Amino acid sequence: MNLLILFKTDFISPDTVSLDGQRFEHLRKVLKAGQGDLVKAGLLDGKLGTGEVIGLDNDQIILRVKLDKEPPPALPLTMVCALQRPQTMKKVLQAVIAYGGKRIYFIHSRKVEKSYWDSPLLQEEELRKHIVLGLEQSGDTVMPEIHFRKNFKPFVEDELENIVGDSLGLTAHPLGKNACPSQVGKTVTLCVGPEGGFTDYEIEMLEEHGCPAVHLGTRPLRTEFAVCALLGRLF
Amino acid sequence: MNLLILFKTDFISPDTVSLDGQRFEHLRKVLKAGQGDLVKAGLLDGKLGTGEVIGLDNDQIILRVKLDKEPPPALPLTMVCALQRPQTMKKVLQAVIAYGGKRIYFIHSRKVEKSYWDSPLLQEEELRKHIVLGLEQSGDTVMPEIHFRKNFKPFVEDELENIVGDSLGLTAHPLGKNACPSQVGKTVTLCVGPEGGFTDYEIEMLEEHGCPAVHLGTRPLRTEFAVCALLGRLF
Repeated sequence: MNLLILFKTDFISPDTVSLDGQRFEHLRKVLKAGQGDLVKAGLLDGKLGTGEVIGLDNDQIILRVKLDKEPPPALPLTMVCALQRPQTMKKVLQAVIAYGGKRIYFIHSRKVEKSYWDSPLLQEEELRKHIVLGLEQSGDTVMPEIHFRKNFKPFVEDELENIVGDSLGLTAHPLGKNACPSQVGKTVTLCVGPEGGFTDYEIEMLEEHGCPAVHLGTRPLRTEFAVCALLGRLF
Repeated sequence: MNLLILFKTDFISPDTVSLDGQRFEHLRKVLKAGQGDLVKAGLLDGKLGTGEVIGLDNDQIILRVKLDKEPPPALPLTMVCALQRPQTMKKVLQAVIAYGGKRIYFIHSRKVEKSYWDSPLLQEEELRKHIVLGLEQSGDTVMPEIHFRKNFKPFVEDELENIVGDSLGLTAHPLGKNACPSQVGKTVTLCVGPEGGFTDYEIEMLEEHGCPAVHLGTRPLRTEFAVCALLGRLF
């Protein structure tokens, strides 16, 4: 945890929060925070700063907070990612959040297993928990928007061009004609396929709607590694 | 598994292998390989090609192999990585192998927990198992060299300059003066620190011995994400 994320409901006065449960445990056991110690803190979707421990008992900790810094700038990225198996989806989320991405579409694609759509990870509360973990790791407070689209064709035909807009649209695909560009210096809409890749038909549709296929070399990469490599290269 | 890795001891004739145990289970249960099916196969540190199932019983599978392709080209990289906690070290290994890196030094550094040096993962057999998994994923047969250096100072003072040689030496560090370069088109020696980063003294020493510090932006990244981002950017 590089940042303690606070929620509006934690506040017991305008500058004081009371924490119990997991965050209390983490502060006490992992960070070993004691009376007078300062920890980095930030209000979800708000400012960053510090929390000073001003009270402690067996199951809660009271912090006086001073939140006066803006969160770090967002990455100019819209990620369009085929839904992944839950373990991989968690890592993709972590990676995009770690880089500061603020808009993700998880979409269906031919090779996405239908059962992935039933994963508990897609439920609002569970998803939010993982996003908050990602924000704590990346030292950011701003929740990304996460959208789900269970039908590939209407998403690409009716929405994708608007999403791409003036940005640079790209689809990461091992058989792309050109190598993925680097240090593009502009907003990017990046499409990433499922474990088995997009089908030829899907690639054709993505290309027709503003996201030409580009490759990252010939070696097969796990989705989460590919996402990190793409972000490290593009920005 | 994108490639079935074969060992010399699997051969029962010059072009026939017999497999049992884990690889047998994987071929039967995951790939559902049956009589006459072809699978991608490669000899460890040798050529790639196919294996055709010519025999099957309850606990072994016989393949006729034709290995006539060269393995994919290696990535021109020497990775110098502070030893990580075992879970992270596995991911760093996977990432470097997935990209085709063939030389890794795991080194000590001030913020490496001493206990990491006692991890079973550092034992030859265990390490080899993880490397083979990485090769199977990346479709490569060539084992990387893995070196361990338990003393930072003599490694940097006596070995690092020779390792860097004509390559581009770099140390990934959040406080580096310049951004990490991209698409460098040459061999790279890349140093990556432990979870808490290299100390100022260590950075100074690495810079003096040919590996200036470069950053990847201001956001804290997990080691395995940073490694993928660096490789995606440099090559």
